Amino acid sequence: MGTEALDEFSLIRLLTGGRQSPAFQRAGGVVTGIGDDAAVVEVTAGRQLILTCDTMTDTTHFTPVTMRDRDIGFKAMASAVSDVAAMGGTPRFALVSLSMPRSYPVERVHSLYEGLYDCANRFGVVVAGGDTTSSSGGLTVSVSVIGETEAGGALLRSTAVPGDVVFVTGELGNSAAGLDWLLSRRAPASSWEDVWAGADVELRPLIEAHCRPLPRIEAGELLRQSAWCHALNDVSDGLASEAWEIAEASGVGMDLLEERIPLSDALCRHAAAAGKEPLDYALFGGEDYELLGTAPAEHAPALQMKFKDAGMPLYLIGVVTAEAGSVRLIRSGGDTVPLEKKGYNHFAG
Amino acid sequence: MGTEALDEFSLIRLLTGGRQSPAFQRAGGVVTGIGDDAAVVEVTAGRQLILTCDTMTDTTHFTPVTMRDRDIGFKAMASAVSDVAAMGGTPRFALVSLSMPRSYPVERVHSLYEGLYDCANRFGVVVAGGDTTSSSGGLTVSVSVIGETEAGGALLRSTAVPGDVVFVTGELGNSAAGLDWLLSRRAPASSWEDVWAGADVELRPLIEAHCRPLPRIEAGELLRQSAWCHALNDVSDGLASEAWEIAEASGVGMDLLEERIPLSDALCRHAAAAGKEPLDYALFGGEDYELLGTAPAEHAPALQMKFKDAGMPLYLIGVVTAEAGSVRLIRSGGDTVPLEKKGYNHFAG
Repeated sequence: MGTEALDEFSLIRLLTGGRQSPAFQRAGGVVTGIGDDAAVVEVTAGRQLILTCDTMTDTTHFTPVTMRDRDIGFKAMASAVSDVAAMGGTPRFALVSLSMPRSYPVERVHSLYEGLYDCANRFGVVVAGGDTTSSSGGLTVSVSVIGETEAGGALLRSTAVPGDVVFVTGELGNSAAGLDWLLSRRAPASSWEDVWAGADVELRPLIEAHCRPLPRIEAGELLRQSAWCHALNDVSDGLASEAWEIAEASGVGMDLLEERIPLSDALCRHAAAAGKEPLDYALFGGEDYELLGTAPAEHAPALQMKFKDAGMPLYLIGVVTAEAGSVRLIRSGGDTVPLEKKGYNHFAG
Repeated sequence: MGTEALDEFSLIRLLTGGRQSPAFQRAGGVVTGIGDDAAVVEVTAGRQLILTCDTMTDTTHFTPVTMRDRDIGFKAMASAVSDVAAMGGTPRFALVSLSMPRSYPVERVHSLYEGLYDCANRFGVVVAGGDTTSSSGGLTVSVSVIGETEAGGALLRSTAVPGDVVFVTGELGNSAAGLDWLLSRRAPASSWEDVWAGADVELRPLIEAHCRPLPRIEAGELLRQSAWCHALNDVSDGLASEAWEIAEASGVGMDLLEERIPLSDALCRHAAAAGKEPLDYALFGGEDYELLGTAPAEHAPALQMKFKDAGMPLYLIGVVTAEAGSVRLIRSGGDTVPLEKKGYNHFAG
């Protein structure tokens, strides 16, 4: 059997399940281990570290057509930082591991690091170390990020409660639509900037969403500080998949309202031109890195006000139900359709 | 220019130099950043975290002839844990990033994780998270380890002082000799166990040194607690290279005594059979993961006694001199020869 037969979670379970007992992990300081966006560990009373890592590899995550070298670096850092945002934490330190062919051009690696640091500096992350090795295959960049919260502050995905509203911190589907356009264009990503010099300027938000996503650290911190947020995830694998993750981890159901799911004008224009359904990008596309979460309905207005005051949007897109195993989309016309658990999956393809 | 034209340190300098000012890093909590075995960061007063990562890739670090899958996992964890030992720290948490072809057999990944956890459990390291992705090339495994010490406790490589003795915690060259034998044998590493059923049982320590190295955490902690250790490194790139690293980082010189460098009987027998110089394996081979350090001469006897009491060897193999830029070998016959800075280098080959 090859790993393509398993989804990522099954593989992780297969590889890590039962290896170290919960008691061992607790004794070792783990507050939240494998199974959420990042691990929470306690080294000193009162403070908790958030540990996470994210890897991007040639062909699977990027090609010369979809990303410039500096985008690869930026996004590798952004996706690991986003895991810290998804815990409501503050990212502090990063370790970067780069493995690449011996003949890999230095200018390209340099550009990649330019992007890594661009993202790290934007979020106050110190690149504290790393490792570079040669590989016989393509480029692989792995970023570990260490973040922190006060003890007990981390926001998990397993704490949604029936009656909660479901919210998202920004438009969904832009990244997948941008990828779609880049792939259909088939031109080197290095000619990217030409796009907004020409008639395609309106595509810019889609391409930027795919190549230079901005993790929602500020939103995550606001949610943690509000003490009103129940469950939280970042949207790395599409809304449907993330909604299922929260629902399953929390033992609840979720109803999402089609008309409330925020889609950008650029996405809708691209979808129309490509003859595709705009909502599909949001539901099944992924890599948006917005935060998807739940909060008690009574605090939703105040939470939206907090976000408004901070200059950030917060869209209420659904409700948490008591029906475990039911994640549904309420269509604009009123029809209710079950949502499939699919999203982007590296192993099941 | 390709990366093969640069050694790893030059590449790291090129990629990270000047990106984040020392003031920014200090403000971010970095006590020791890029340039030592691992980074030391301070999150809470009184405790310091040690952050490090290490990557192993197909062909560069292992082949089907040199390592079984469980050895790959064991050694990937061991080499990252060894960086914590080299700081005198205690390893606490690990993040594992695995990238592999979609068709990679699950049993093989499972064996690899078997080895990862075998090593982690042996050293009390909690595997707190990770990431698995598919790759178009071979297997890449990257392990980040978070360790800790009391504030100010980490042992650096830049603190050797003229007059110090140079010590090492175990025999050197075994790993390189083991690799040599495995490569010359050209049989699948999975048939490894046959070796000690047969006439080659005496090779076992060499092969184990290469495939399942044991990081010297206990020795590192003892050195830190003694408060007598000045500089410390782990021997990942050969004695010559590591001696140069300490000498350069500390602005000192080093004289090593050939007759004091500990070589195993197995190594000497293998070298004789292979028609090679035993000492070359120790000086230029690498991946021994013993600790190489310096300590004030007046405390050397007491330090050796402490090690003896703990059931561990400590070999005194040289002295630190004031002659910066001079790393020499004093031959058994009395000749003095300059030692080349070479060692295993992934990029300069």
